Amino acid sequence: MNTLGKIFRISVFGESHGPEVGIIIDGCPAGLEINEGLILKDIDRRKSGAKGTTPRKEYDIPEIMSGVYNGKSTGAPIMISTKNTDERPSDYNKFLSVPRPGHADMVSYQKYRGYADIRGGGHFSGRLTWGMVTAGSIAKLIIEPIEVKTQLLSAGGNKDALKEVDRALKEGDSVGCLIECVASGVPAGLGEPLYYSVESAISQVIFSIPAIKGIEFGSGFRAASMRGSEHNDPIIDKYGRTSTNNAGGINGGISNGNDIVLRVAVKPPSSISKEQKTWNIEKNEIDSLKIEGRHDACIALRIPVIIEAAVSLALADLILINRAINGGPE
Amino acid sequence: MNTLGKIFRISVFGESHGPEVGIIIDGCPAGLEINEGLILKDIDRRKSGAKGTTPRKEYDIPEIMSGVYNGKSTGAPIMISTKNTDERPSDYNKFLSVPRPGHADMVSYQKYRGYADIRGGGHFSGRLTWGMVTAGSIAKLIIEPIEVKTQLLSAGGNKDALKEVDRALKEGDSVGCLIECVASGVPAGLGEPLYYSVESAISQVIFSIPAIKGIEFGSGFRAASMRGSEHNDPIIDKYGRTSTNNAGGINGGISNGNDIVLRVAVKPPSSISKEQKTWNIEKNEIDSLKIEGRHDACIALRIPVIIEAAVSLALADLILINRAINGGPE
Amino acid sequence: MNTLGKIFRISVFGESHGPEVGIIIDGCPAGLEINEGLILKDIDRRKSGAKGTTPRKEYDIPEIMSGVYNGKSTGAPIMISTKNTDERPSDYNKFLSVPRPGHADMVSYQKYRGYADIRGGGHFSGRLTWGMVTAGSIAKLIIEPIEVKTQLLSAGGNKDALKEVDRALKEGDSVGCLIECVASGVPAGLGEPLYYSVESAISQVIFSIPAIKGIEFGSGFRAASMRGSEHNDPIIDKYGRTSTNNAGGINGGISNGNDIVLRVAVKPPSSISKEQKTWNIEKNEIDSLKIEGRHDACIALRIPVIIEAAVSLALADLILINRAINGGPE
Amino acid sequence: MNTLGKIFRISVFGESHGPEVGIIIDGCPAGLEINEGLILKDIDRRKSGAKGTTPRKEYDIPEIMSGVYNGKSTGAPIMISTKNTDERPSDYNKFLSVPRPGHADMVSYQKYRGYADIRGGGHFSGRLTWGMVTAGSIAKLIIEPIEVKTQLLSAGGNKDALKEVDRALKEGDSVGCLIECVASGVPAGLGEPLYYSVESAISQVIFSIPAIKGIEFGSGFRAASMRGSEHNDPIIDKYGRTSTNNAGGINGGISNGNDIVLRVAVKPPSSISKEQKTWNIEKNEIDSLKIEGRHDACIALRIPVIIEAAVSLALADLILINRAINGGPE
Repeated sequence: MNTLGKIFRISVFGESHGPEVGIIIDGCPAGLEINEGLILKDIDRRKSGAKGTTPRKEYDIPEIMSGVYNGKSTGAPIMISTKNTDERPSDYNKFLSVPRPGHADMVSYQKYRGYADIRGGGHFSGRLTWGMVTAGSIAKLIIEPIEVKTQLLSAGGNKDALKEVDRALKEGDSVGCLIECVASGVPAGLGEPLYYSVESAISQVIFSIPAIKGIEFGSGFRAASMRGSEHNDPIIDKYGRTSTNNAGGINGGISNGNDIVLRVAVKPPSSISKEQKTWNIEKNEIDSLKIEGRHDACIALRIPVIIEAAVSLALADLILINRAINGGPE
Repeated sequence: MNTLGKIFRISVFGESHGPEVGIIIDGCPAGLEINEGLILKDIDRRKSGAKGTTPRKEYDIPEIMSGVYNGKSTGAPIMISTKNTDERPSDYNKFLSVPRPGHADMVSYQKYRGYADIRGGGHFSGRLTWGMVTAGSIAKLIIEPIEVKTQLLSAGGNKDALKEVDRALKEGDSVGCLIECVASGVPAGLGEPLYYSVESAISQVIFSIPAIKGIEFGSGFRAASMRGSEHNDPIIDKYGRTSTNNAGGINGGISNGNDIVLRVAVKPPSSISKEQKTWNIEKNEIDSLKIEGRHDACIALRIPVIIEAAVSLALADLILINRAINGGPE
Repeated sequence: MNTLGKIFRISVFGESHGPEVGIIIDGCPAGLEINEGLILKDIDRRKSGAKGTTPRKEYDIPEIMSGVYNGKSTGAPIMISTKNTDERPSDYNKFLSVPRPGHADMVSYQKYRGYADIRGGGHFSGRLTWGMVTAGSIAKLIIEPIEVKTQLLSAGGNKDALKEVDRALKEGDSVGCLIECVASGVPAGLGEPLYYSVESAISQVIFSIPAIKGIEFGSGFRAASMRGSEHNDPIIDKYGRTSTNNAGGINGGISNGNDIVLRVAVKPPSSISKEQKTWNIEKNEIDSLKIEGRHDACIALRIPVIIEAAVSLALADLILINRAINGGPE
Repeated sequence: MNTLGKIFRISVFGESHGPEVGIIIDGCPAGLEINEGLILKDIDRRKSGAKGTTPRKEYDIPEIMSGVYNGKSTGAPIMISTKNTDERPSDYNKFLSVPRPGHADMVSYQKYRGYADIRGGGHFSGRLTWGMVTAGSIAKLIIEPIEVKTQLLSAGGNKDALKEVDRALKEGDSVGCLIECVASGVPAGLGEPLYYSVESAISQVIFSIPAIKGIEFGSGFRAASMRGSEHNDPIIDKYGRTSTNNAGGINGGISNGNDIVLRVAVKPPSSISKEQKTWNIEKNEIDSLKIEGRHDACIALRIPVIIEAAVSLALADLILINRAINGGPE
């Protein structure tokens, strides 16, 4: 399903090597200041070119095709797209018969009975996160004054992340990373029990980002080893502020007014220069595969803005829903 | 939002101390064999009474109110409910002014401007998982021959979980636990990119269960420390089977035919006998709170069947969606 | 699909001869005054017993099972049900082999491959509108100060509707009727283009009521014969009020501040005492059928409150959505 | 809300005078043969240029931007757009202060607090139906072998529709029209009770088309004057075929295997050359308005393909849902 959200809703389209990728944003209030500059500020942060990222030059310039007039959102659906200009489809033909380990080549072949466009990962490509970042820029206007920030905690298990990326690059390998995301200024009361809890809403978006293997809120996996007396956050004022934040800012699926804190585990990119074993569909035997060309050794530097966007999208939808229902009977 | 799923859909209702809790299941194929016995088999596993669980005697008997005729599903919505017979509302009155740390008392007060029924946690109570387990019993009929199994890995950080629960009980405290869930027999091709990936669908349900702090698939948080050469799972046959399973059975959000493997971190129950600090709304100052009466020291023994239900619900919906779309053009 | 609405959402369950019918209402703001009396006021208007309606005595007493505490909505899902106490399943057995013309016997048999509970129409019974009326009573609290009123324009083509119903009753026959519904006090700006226009939202609900054959807004079918110069409603003040109301209070799918006016055509009830021809599935030949027992000669007196409920439900959802999105960027 | 459907889903974007209009189609099975030619066949039927239609030359060429590879659908979202090349924004500036009667100028101003792009009707323009027709071309592939056909019954109340259009044109006026649509080859069992009945699904789409004032199925508004003995369709074979079709092919919201028959009333286009009265927002008084330039005198010749598309879209979604749920437990 290519649509996310109930009120503030985004629908994606595109493939890595098709003519363009883009996004429709529906349910956006009228009167928000939206322009290419606003979006580029975020888009530039997910750009390739940084250390450890693919040298592919994507011309990421956003084109606003609808829903904005005289620099302001109109209330109509906002469509924003960008051209794919650096297509090299020839690179990918062989993966039809020799699916790359860790990639979606094999599953997309199976799911779509051979009809999928697997060039560059097709619809499964990280390229599709362009739309999420774009929509995130607009979501940030809606969630104001909430601020969503990310921090790279480590890469390849090393707090000196850049050094670890360097090392992996030299070895023709890749590394995973750990990201923390904090939303501050969140009002109490966001989230709808049970199936649209803050965690449900955020995790659903986060897991639409390729390469995410885990998510935890507040104490997270440490909670499994903790005692209740240690885990419960003492409430210290009438606004519900707590002296610790094991809850990660969420009780019963509802924001409690403290910072929302979450961490996500990002797997190492699947494309590596090292030789790998995989199945050769044509020869019907195990084969060796060496992936040539450009690829990210680590997406540690590109993924923070994507995670911020994901969290902002979830919060924007929850804010609008809360405004609808809990504005009260008046 | 109290509804989950797109085709196989469940809608919950009820409060801990209201007359009944229950669930409507829509989108269930006709002709499935459904009776109280089928449901009780699962319900009995979430019952209280086991070591470390609350002695509250809930009469969990399911009553099938619609959608089943002559022992078979009819295609119409299935409503199943159970009475709440062991209500002791008087226990909870004071938490209106002295919200319990870790519970939803404070947020539900804030979100619903004082109108929420907070007795026993109200709509936020673990009691509501009764409906999820009930719906899970039916979901299991749809996902056949997929089998979903859980395993308790540890409690309070201790692999000898029962011993740790005992210790906490004696201390008037509670402990968290770590659960692993494996779905085997999953066909390749389930999951819809991007926002209804297998991980998105499963995590959305899992995080509607109270007390969940984290979820990870396959390698999970370890992935953040791994190299690509180590993480990529070599494909070893034409069905897509892999020699390792760091992917947790999912690539690009789509099931790859291997076991789906996930782990969830469960926080220690918030109700403990030990004295705690919290805000006293009436007195407008920090106060001490001691929660009397029955409560779980650990839900390690009750939560596995809930997690199985959650995973089964997500898979049932994905299976029906896949049947709709990818049965192909014919 | 048994769920209606995007924010203010209702989910129905039940069959004519099952233990109970009912409804879950989600997305209802907290703090609304809700009790059995409020609901009975509307329920009494759809009761049988009036001239031309079935003498079946349904004990329509609503039981509020969740979501209301101390007489006020809590913000949690509201479940309201009523027992079916006047079951006579034996009446209906033969319709399995001799499907009644105009009823859903044959299609429910085909759709659900023989598993449907067709007693009294099962899930297709008019009995299910009990839930819609109940939800409508609550929707009316949300749409205040909008008032939704209906008027019976004719039955069997006769403006003296009661006389026509009498005549049909004597003949063992039934008659259709024409109903007009007016919502006054509607603010301008409700409705979302394109697929959730006011007309889209209302017609979707209206056509879930059994027996509806047509709906028209404002000028309706007369518009097909009109000139633009005659049809266009001159705007006469800054609020958008118009001197005529061919638009029926809606332009471009959005309420324009004038009364919303619609008419629905209701077919004659399918159960009649007269002998009819139909297919005998067992004998595999055309057969004669005479339906014994109680049935409505006309639902003219029962359906107005159902139509009011339907329109109120659609408006309640549109109001909450509009509050979410068009409260503006602030 | 710009998204329609539950499985086969379309999301629209665009304004009359923005850079482009288009549509995303999600939930489309892989392997369908899709190309510009397929779409142009339908698009050409909604083109302007015919008698009574606006001389505006839209370059309606569809560009397939995603979801199709090597001439076949891939299973990924399909985005199709077309450029708006004949923009004349200057025509529309004055309608900001002098809203055109019958148009959405006034309501879009009110709803979006002055931020809407009202040039050419903006997002409310009939131009947006381009996307519906485009999606309809693809829906037709899914509903095969169902055939959806329309017939123009009358315009301006005259069966000689073209003559009536001529007359209106000469008078600087416009006329409404009446369209009948028949879907033949429909299998029994489509439609989901209650809120996604065949009539609910179809009417929701039909009323997203600008200018529709009414819809009726089978006997339609005549049913209000009929007797049950006359209205009930005798079933004459084991497939559920009936000797008459007052039901319009639908019982209890479910297709019964006979032709689905519906009629829609289309109002006269609101733009006429004749002088009209309306409110002048700037002057704060009633004013005279004469709309210069191009416009349709009747959309009788353009709207049939749009109605076919609407019905096809609804049926495609119902078919996929039915395939998901009522393929049975197996």
